[in-house]
This record gives sequence, C-alpha cells and structure tokens, in this order.
Amino acid sequence: MPHNDFRHSLAQQLRVDSVRASDAGGSGHPTSSMSAADLMAVLLDGYLKLDYAHPDNPANDHLVFSKGHASPLYYAMLKAVGAVGDDELLSFRSFGSRLEGHPTPRIPPTDVATGSLGQGLPVGVGLALAGKRLDGLPYRVWVLCGDSEMAEGSIWEAFQHAGWAGLDNLTAIIDVNRLGQTRETMLGWDVDGYVARCEAFGWKAIPVDGHDLDDIDAALSQAVSVTDRPSVIIARTCKGRGVAAVENQPGKHGKPLEDPAGAVSELGGNHSVSVQVKTPAPGTPRRFATVGGSLPRWEIGEEIATRQAYGEALTELGGLRGDVVVLDGEVSNSTMSALFAKAHPERYFEMFIAEQQMVAAAVGLQARGWVPFVSTFGAFLTRAHDFIRMAAVSRADLRLCGSHAGVSIGEDGPSQMALEDVSMFRSIHGSTVLHPSDANQTAALVAEMATLPGISYVRTLRGRTPVRTSPEENIRVGGSRVLFNSDDDDLTIVACGITVGEAEKAAEVLDAEGVRARVIDCYSIKPIDRPTLVDAAAQTRAVLTVEDHWLEGGLGDAVLDALAECADRPPVRKLAVTEMPVSGKPGELLHAAHIDAEAIVEAARQLVKA
Amino acid sequence: MPHNDFRHSLAQQLRVDSVRASDAGGSGHPTSSMSAADLMAVLLDGYLKLDYAHPDNPANDHLVFSKGHASPLYYAMLKAVGAVGDDELLSFRSFGSRLEGHPTPRIPPTDVATGSLGQGLPVGVGLALAGKRLDGLPYRVWVLCGDSEMAEGSIWEAFQHAGWAGLDNLTAIIDVNRLGQTRETMLGWDVDGYVARCEAFGWKAIPVDGHDLDDIDAALSQAVSVTDRPSVIIARTCKGRGVAAVENQPGKHGKPLEDPAGAVSELGGNHSVSVQVKTPAPGTPRRFATVGGSLPRWEIGEEIATRQAYGEALTELGGLRGDVVVLDGEVSNSTMSALFAKAHPERYFEMFIAEQQMVAAAVGLQARGWVPFVSTFGAFLTRAHDFIRMAAVSRADLRLCGSHAGVSIGEDGPSQMALEDVSMFRSIHGSTVLHPSDANQTAALVAEMATLPGISYVRTLRGRTPVRTSPEENIRVGGSRVLFNSDDDDLTIVACGITVGEAEKAAEVLDAEGVRARVIDCYSIKPIDRPTLVDAAAQTRAVLTVEDHWLEGGLGDAVLDALAECADRPPVRKLAVTEMPVSGKPGELLHAAHIDAEAIVEAARQLVKA
Repeated sequence: MPHNDFRHSLAQQLRVDSVRASDAGGSGHPTSSMSAADLMAVLLDGYLKLDYAHPDNPANDHLVFSKGHASPLYYAMLKAVGAVGDDELLSFRSFGSRLEGHPTPRIPPTDVATGSLGQGLPVGVGLALAGKRLDGLPYRVWVLCGDSEMAEGSIWEAFQHAGWAGLDNLTAIIDVNRLGQTRETMLGWDVDGYVARCEAFGWKAIPVDGHDLDDIDAALSQAVSVTDRPSVIIARTCKGRGVAAVENQPGKHGKPLEDPAGAVSELGGNHSVSVQVKTPAPGTPRRFATVGGSLPRWEIGEEIATRQAYGEALTELGGLRGDVVVLDGEVSNSTMSALFAKAHPERYFEMFIAEQQMVAAAVGLQARGWVPFVSTFGAFLTRAHDFIRMAAVSRADLRLCGSHAGVSIGEDGPSQMALEDVSMFRSIHGSTVLHPSDANQTAALVAEMATLPGISYVRTLRGRTPVRTSPEENIRVGGSRVLFNSDDDDLTIVACGITVGEAEKAAEVLDAEGVRARVIDCYSIKPIDRPTLVDAAAQTRAVLTVEDHWLEGGLGDAVLDALAECADRPPVRKLAVTEMPVSGKPGELLHAAHIDAEAIVEAARQLVKA
Repeated sequence: MPHNDFRHSLAQQLRVDSVRASDAGGSGHPTSSMSAADLMAVLLDGYLKLDYAHPDNPANDHLVFSKGHASPLYYAMLKAVGAVGDDELLSFRSFGSRLEGHPTPRIPPTDVATGSLGQGLPVGVGLALAGKRLDGLPYRVWVLCGDSEMAEGSIWEAFQHAGWAGLDNLTAIIDVNRLGQTRETMLGWDVDGYVARCEAFGWKAIPVDGHDLDDIDAALSQAVSVTDRPSVIIARTCKGRGVAAVENQPGKHGKPLEDPAGAVSELGGNHSVSVQVKTPAPGTPRRFATVGGSLPRWEIGEEIATRQAYGEALTELGGLRGDVVVLDGEVSNSTMSALFAKAHPERYFEMFIAEQQMVAAAVGLQARGWVPFVSTFGAFLTRAHDFIRMAAVSRADLRLCGSHAGVSIGEDGPSQMALEDVSMFRSIHGSTVLHPSDANQTAALVAEMATLPGISYVRTLRGRTPVRTSPEENIRVGGSRVLFNSDDDDLTIVACGITVGEAEKAAEVLDAEGVRARVIDCYSIKPIDRPTLVDAAAQTRAVLTVEDHWLEGGLGDAVLDALAECADRPPVRKLAVTEMPVSGKPGELLHAAHIDAEAIVEAARQLVKA
C-alpha cells in the first residue's frame, strides 16, 4: 500500500472512531477531532517516537492534547496504536471508564489533564525544559492546540518563554479549523496572522494545508529539523472534515453526529487500522548528584523572616536531593528562592512575570519525575488558580510558596497582599496548606513538602519574626504547637504566621488580668491538628481564631471545620481582615484590621465575660 | 521658554518628586518612575485631555498606570496638574494617605487599582470598548505599561482583543527600561522584538527614544492620528534616568535612593512646575433606551435549567435597564447569555476564550458607569481570580455568572466542573455569592444583582431542575427558603443548587422512617441567612450541609461560620465532594460523591442516632 494510502486510511479510521466514541458516549466533540485527524495520522506514522507499550520509558516523546475536547481523536489514536481496545474506546465518557470527557493521566501515557484551554502548550514548555535542561534526553514534545485557545494569554506566555529559551525540542501543531463553540474565531482562517504572531515570538512557523498528507509530512519533517528555536505547524483545516453534514458548518460543536452510521459509511467504513509508532532510542535521564547539606537551624529568639528561612531551607534541600528544582516569577529576591538559584543555578528556572506559565512548567517538570518548588508573592498565585486546579486533576505533585502574606507586608498596599491564598489552596483537591510562624518551622515543613504527594503550599511572611520553635521540636504536616496552656485555661486562641506573636502578647496581657489563654500556633492549616483543637475546645470556654487573611476560607473556617461535629463546643469567634487594607506600617495595618494583640485582648475579654 | 525647555523642566520635576515621595515614604519605586518621566511630561503637556478639576467629566481621557509600581511618578503628575499638594505627595505610603503604594481609586481620577502587573492594559481595553461601542465619545485611553509585564499573558489577550476590535482610541506606552526586579527582562532593549510582536497583533507600533522629547512628541502625534487600530509607543528608556548612581544600574529596583538630596540636586533641584493639561470638548455619553420588559416567571413544577433562567432574566433585564451590558467567554450558548446577545447585540461583548481580558474589560466598562454581567463556566472563572481580586481593590461593581457547577454536569469531567468557585468568591472582599436552585430564584437574584455594589456572583446549573419557588415569593440576597419544617424537627439539612432536590428526596425518605428533617434552600451563601440557620440549629439535634463543591470554602463552611458564635449548637456535618470526580451521568456522579439523597439519608440517620 503506498504510504499516503495507509495514512489516509488511518486518518479516516481516526475520524470513524471519533464519531463512534462520541456516539457511544452520547456527547463529545467529534467535529473538533475530525479536523486534526490527518495531522495526527502523519504524526503517528513516521514522527512520534513513543513506546506505547512502555509509557514510562523515559526516552519517550510526549504528546499533549492542549485542545483536550478533541479527546475522541486522542482515544482513537490510542486504539490505533494498540493501547486501548475497541470496547474501551466505546466506553468513552461512561462512569468508570479511563476515557473521560477530557484526557487525564488515568489513561497512560497521558502526562497531564487538559480541558481547560490554553494549558497544554505551557505544560509542554515545562516538559521541553525538562528535556533540554534537566534530563538531557532528545525526546520531542508535541502539542496539539486548537485555534480558539490561541486567545488565551497563557498560550502567549508559552510562546514567549519557549522562544526565549530556544526550545527546539518543542513542536506545536495548531488545528486552525476556524470555528469555535458559537462562532468564527478571532482570526478565522487567517493563517498568515498566526504565522506573524508566532514568528514574532521567536518560533519557526510552518503553514500547511492540514488535510494534505504530503504537505503535513513536509511540515513535520521541517519541524524536527529546526534548531535553536521551537517550531509550530499552522494547519488550515475544516472542522468536521470528511462528513458533509458537519464539515465546516457552524452549530456542530460539541455534540455527536446526527447520523453516525451514515458518517462512518461516508468516511469509508469502520476498519481495523493499526499503526506501528516508532520507539525512541534508549536513554536515561540525567540526575544531579546529592552534594549533601543539612537543614538550617536557628536559635530561639533570633529574628528572621520565614521567607528567608524558605530560601535557606530550599537551598540546603537542593544539596540533599538532586531532584529538587525551583521556579520563580522574577521576584526571587523577595521570595528568597534567589538563594537556591545562586547555589544550584542549573536547577533554577527564571519564569519571569508569567505565573500561569510558571505553574504549568512545574507541572511539566514533575511529570518527568522532578520535584519542583514554585514561588512568587502569594497574591500573584491567584493568577495561576486555574492551572493549580488543573494540576490537581493531573494528579501532579507540586510545591508552591507564596510570600508576602497579608496586611503585615505594610506599605506596598492591597495589590501585593495575599489575603485569599489560604482559601484558594484549601479548596484545591488533595492539597496541603502550611503557614509557619518562624524560621525553624519553615525549614522543617519545606523539607517535608519535598516528600508530599499532591499540591502543597507554604505561606511565608515578609517581615521578621522571632524564632520560638526549637530546631529539635517535632514540626510536621498536620501538627500544631501549643505556646501556653494549663489545666484551667479560660479560652483558646488559635493563630498562625504573623498573628502568633500578637496572640502571645495578648495572652500575656490577659494573664495579668487573670484570664488564662491557651495559645495554639496552627502552622498546618490543612490537614489541621484536629485532636489538639477539639481538646482545647472541650477544655476552655471560648475559641478565638486570628489570622492575617480575609474572614472567609482561611484559618478560622478551618478551625470551625475541625470542630464541626463537636456538639458541646464553646463559641468560636474569628478575627480576620474584613475591610480593604491600605498602605501603612505593618503594625498600623494589623491594628487597623483588628488582628493585633489589642484586638485579641478585647475579643477575649468579651468572650470570657459572655 | 521654548517648549522643550518646559517639558524638560516638567520631566525633571516629576523625577524629583518621585525621588522625594519615595524618600518620604521610606519605600517605593523611584527608578521605575524616572524612566517614564519624559514620556509622561510630553503626554501631560500637549496630548492628554483630562479635566483634573472635574474627574467625573465623562469626556475625559483615561490614563491607566499598568505599571502601578511607578506610583511615585503618577502622584508627581497629580501634583504637577494641581490635583494634590506637596504635603500630600510626601504622605506617600503612609497610613491614611490617599497615595498608596500602588494607585487605587481612592485618589481621583484613578479609574482602577493597579499593582498586579499585566492588568492595566486589559482594563484599558474595557475603557476603550466603552468609548467606541457604548458611550460614543471621542475620549482616548492611555496606558503606561512596564516592560516586565509584557511577559504576562493577559497583556497579549489585550493586544489580541484590541487589535481585533480596532480600538484606535487606545494608546499603550511601553516603558522599555530593560531592567526588571532581579535581572534583565526577556527582551531587554530589543525594541524591534516588541515592534514585531505588537504589529503581529494588529497594532500600530511606534518605536521611540523615550528620553528624546521631540521623538516622543512625534510619536504621540502619530499615535493619535492612527485610525482603525490601536497604537503602541515602544520607548527605549533608562531605569533611574537622570541620576548617575542608579541610572541603568541593576539592583536598584523598588527602593528609595541612597542620596535623595544629591539626586534632587543632580536633577536640577526642586522647583514648582505646574502644567496646564488640555480639557476635553464637552460630551455626553450615549445611554440606551429602556425598552421595557418583565422578569420571566415559571410555574411550579416546570423543569428548567438555572442557566437558561439566567439567560432569560438577563435578556429581560436588558430591556428594563439601558445600562446593563453582557460579556461572555465564547460559551454563550452554554451560559445562555446568548439570549441577551440576540436581543441586545449592541450591548453584548464577545470576549472569546480569554477570561482575564473578559473580567478586565468588565472592570473598565463599570468604571464608565455601565452595569456589566460576565459569564463563562464557573470553573474557568478561576482563570481570572487575580483580576477579580484586583477588581475588589478597584472598588468595582461587577456581576459574574459561573455556569456548569459541580459534578452534576456529568460527562465532560472534572476539567469543566466548578468545584472551587464558591470558595473563591466568598473570599473576595465585599462579595455576594448566590446559588439558586430553580428558575424563579435565579430571575429574582439576577435582577437584584444589577443593583448590588461590589462583586456579586451567581452560580448556575447545567441540568434542569424543577421550579419549586413561586414567582411571588420574596427571594432576596441574604435570604433562604425553608422547604419543610415543623415544631419538632429532628435535624436540619442545608442545601443549595442541585442538592436541594436531593435533600428534598432524602427528607421524604426520612419522614417515612419517622425522622423529621427541616430542609433549607440556602440560595444566598454570602450574605447567608444567619437567623434562619441559628434558629434551625437551636431547634434541631443536628445540622447537615450538602453541596456540589469541594469540602472547603463552600456552603458548609459558610453555615459553620454563621453558627460560629452559637455556644449550644448541635453537631454539624458537611457533605461535599472529597474525591476527584470522573466522567459519568449526573446521577452517577452525585452518588459517587456521596452528595445524593441516599448519602444524605445515611448521614442523617447517623446524626440523629448519635
């Protein structure tokens, strides 16, 4: 069979299986699959080097479907390479199937979940960075993008970073089928417009007729030969290609075909077409030597910012573990990841002010087995919320550090204050949320984060705090630290981060008044130390939480949750930030927000009197 | 005095005042201010048309400092135009001053807060859209951008949208001073690289020596003469320009000068330089006629999706109020804002798949007095979290609708399920969070949203739900609806959205077992109907919350918060999504997540038995 005959058969069968899977599932995006079938057929037959029988082969190429809604095509490809059978293909979107509505890592060799548009390409940048800078392997990263998602800024963060980094092991394929969900895209079939944009960002752009097999072959061949920069194939295609009833028709997005049997027939019928994908040359990823080191320790009473402790601990961790890598959003001298960058420059990634690309790159790096720590101001991690959410769907192990928590940063004002970060991270599936109050706590928790599955977050402070915790103390995820307690405590004060010092001061004032306060430093907000809180609630007459965060979703809500099922718990009052802060000195702002020692004392008096 | 002599004096005084303000404040970004002083001097003296004495003049140009950290320059300009005095200038960053670390609307005529990079330009697109498509006024929108923020994808969403929309009333000025916080930017002084990018996105790019007053004048003159597309001045500048100790030096970001007196002297001394800014020709913004209409009503028992009710209510609201405008992220036939688009096309903005630009545009529109409603899938609003957070700092009045809430969407899978949206919106300052369970509730709440200050959010469902609420019933922000109650209820079930039907079914099963459940439809999550919840807690032996949302930050936490200070409240148990969902039928997924009627019954039995 001449080469193109086979590729045509393969492409048609990918379309047939896209139609069949969507029909079986009762929903899905067959037309968005059909436009890219020719592109994927040629990719499978000749260019992709992926050992589907051994998805963990470290030399494998990576294929990311950034247009995750083209999952029927993706699964049809898995069938063509023998990774799934026809029965499983037809389980598409049914409960229990590995073939979900949008791809997830539940079906190998899928690296990451897609389906929120504009994320696959930035993750691909992370995979390509791993290949170039860490693994030292010649694998290629292929990313299939839709044209609608070219409107997402995150796509251009990826273009910018990959161009800057010269990632010639990255090839994007844009399926320019012109039609979005409700209308024509901004650029329609303006292939030249895409070429100009991509070239301006430093990529080699290759326009192509996405249904001409020779043209596609030439484009892929050219793409893999580009050196010093990433390549992008801009393919003019027709949505629904191959079935007249839907081809290039508006209103045919995201639904099964009305006449699937007729469509299969029009496509040439349902056949068994299998393709032998190339396997990569064997290769072993580079690993960095562990050069040793020991976690930093500070003496009780030293004054040091937890962000400084983060940087120092991370640097030592880098010596102890060769798999730790660090990314920062061009604020490394604020988050203090700059210390790691100086000690381990080969494992530091400057991601500039592009938080979405930063998190996506980390997701890509962890998919290759690395242990990324990501840092910027906590406030700016909100920029990457959708990426962090999707990282959880990707079952990614990711460590994030948000510095400059709360009003305690002072003069910079509310735009720079993380006041919603704890809420955001608590509601990420499977997350861990930590907010140490001193340097020794920070070091212990940062070290533990390296071993945690899922998304973990540590929140650090701009200003210095006194070291209260001995370096010998058992600080751990899920733990807490009781500063003061007695058998006849009147009330419990639960604090974290900057408010621990305020609670400590308040307890001293209250003690002078004959009111005994138990003070709990709740440095682990999720999981939270429920037994300690439940005991405290049972043993005191009121619980007061105090945090430098909005009233909603933070420490106070976490404490309420821990005590939810206690029938006889005493009243709980939450002190938190409730008015929009302004600029000022840290102490002025803590006072204005009613989360300083004075506010704690006043609330405690009311609660105990009640 | 020859023209350039005056402009030079003005620019030098802007630098002097930037140095003085930062010195007085003890922190700030004088060097990032000094690079743009010549640009702003020429803008003030000849191009900007802004009646500073009357900030509310609707014909005013708008000036947005996207590089918000150049606030010393911004405030120095306000001093030069007479809007603030020298004493206030020197109050920079002090507690109580209107001159915060980054600009906010507390100091007129500032439209929006900046300081999270990459947001000012997208907001500027919104202001320009208002001018072009709504107000029908010839004002120009000027946006000063930093070069570091060109790495933010949101900047390219703005370039894409403004280019597509042909916003020739928008001029960006990029201060290419080469140096970021810790190092050189990705492009450094590669002015050609910026030109290529901007031109590729359909803008007129004008490179300029940012310290040559004639060159700047020519560029501004050219910019205002461009028709049919936006213009961008790409200005090569030196950070810290004018003071040798900091000019073009690394390590001088974000701190006062070490020798401010010497710097002032080097800049020519501190003088009184005032500038007369042009005032615009008088103009009145267009307003759309109210064509009338009446909120849709549905009969009890009808089955209709709340997203459909959203679209229908919004459409009627558009007839009742000429100031309502709608934006959608290319999913209007899913969110059902398509109904509004069809009825009121002149007030509908297709924002394509660019959620950050969508929210930013709405912020710009509301700054011009319009009443924007913004919709996409609730899951994808996480993409705009930082913009929503900053909208609160901007004191913006913004209405958002997130459709496709929770696992109840079914087959599309977790990437499309909003499961963290309630948590996100609860922790936005001053927010309102609504989650109606039926169509009549939705219509009433959407109508009320149009009158609400601050950020309000309504969460809608993909699938149909039966109408349980009479159109006559008083549905309101802060309210709730008790479906069943009696004087001897055993437990309280609090639900919202899709789980109201499950709670209803569960209550019937429990009733047959002799367990009486009070069922509360808590459609207003923030503010929440505390009195009703407190009464229920006092009158029953247990409280069970059930929601289609992650366990953290949603309805359950809101109920716990409402009951926090109740000393004698019964145990509260939260039912919510705790495992990563997959694809499946809605009923299968509600069951698998243990938030269906069966799970409620089981939990209720345990609670009542306890």
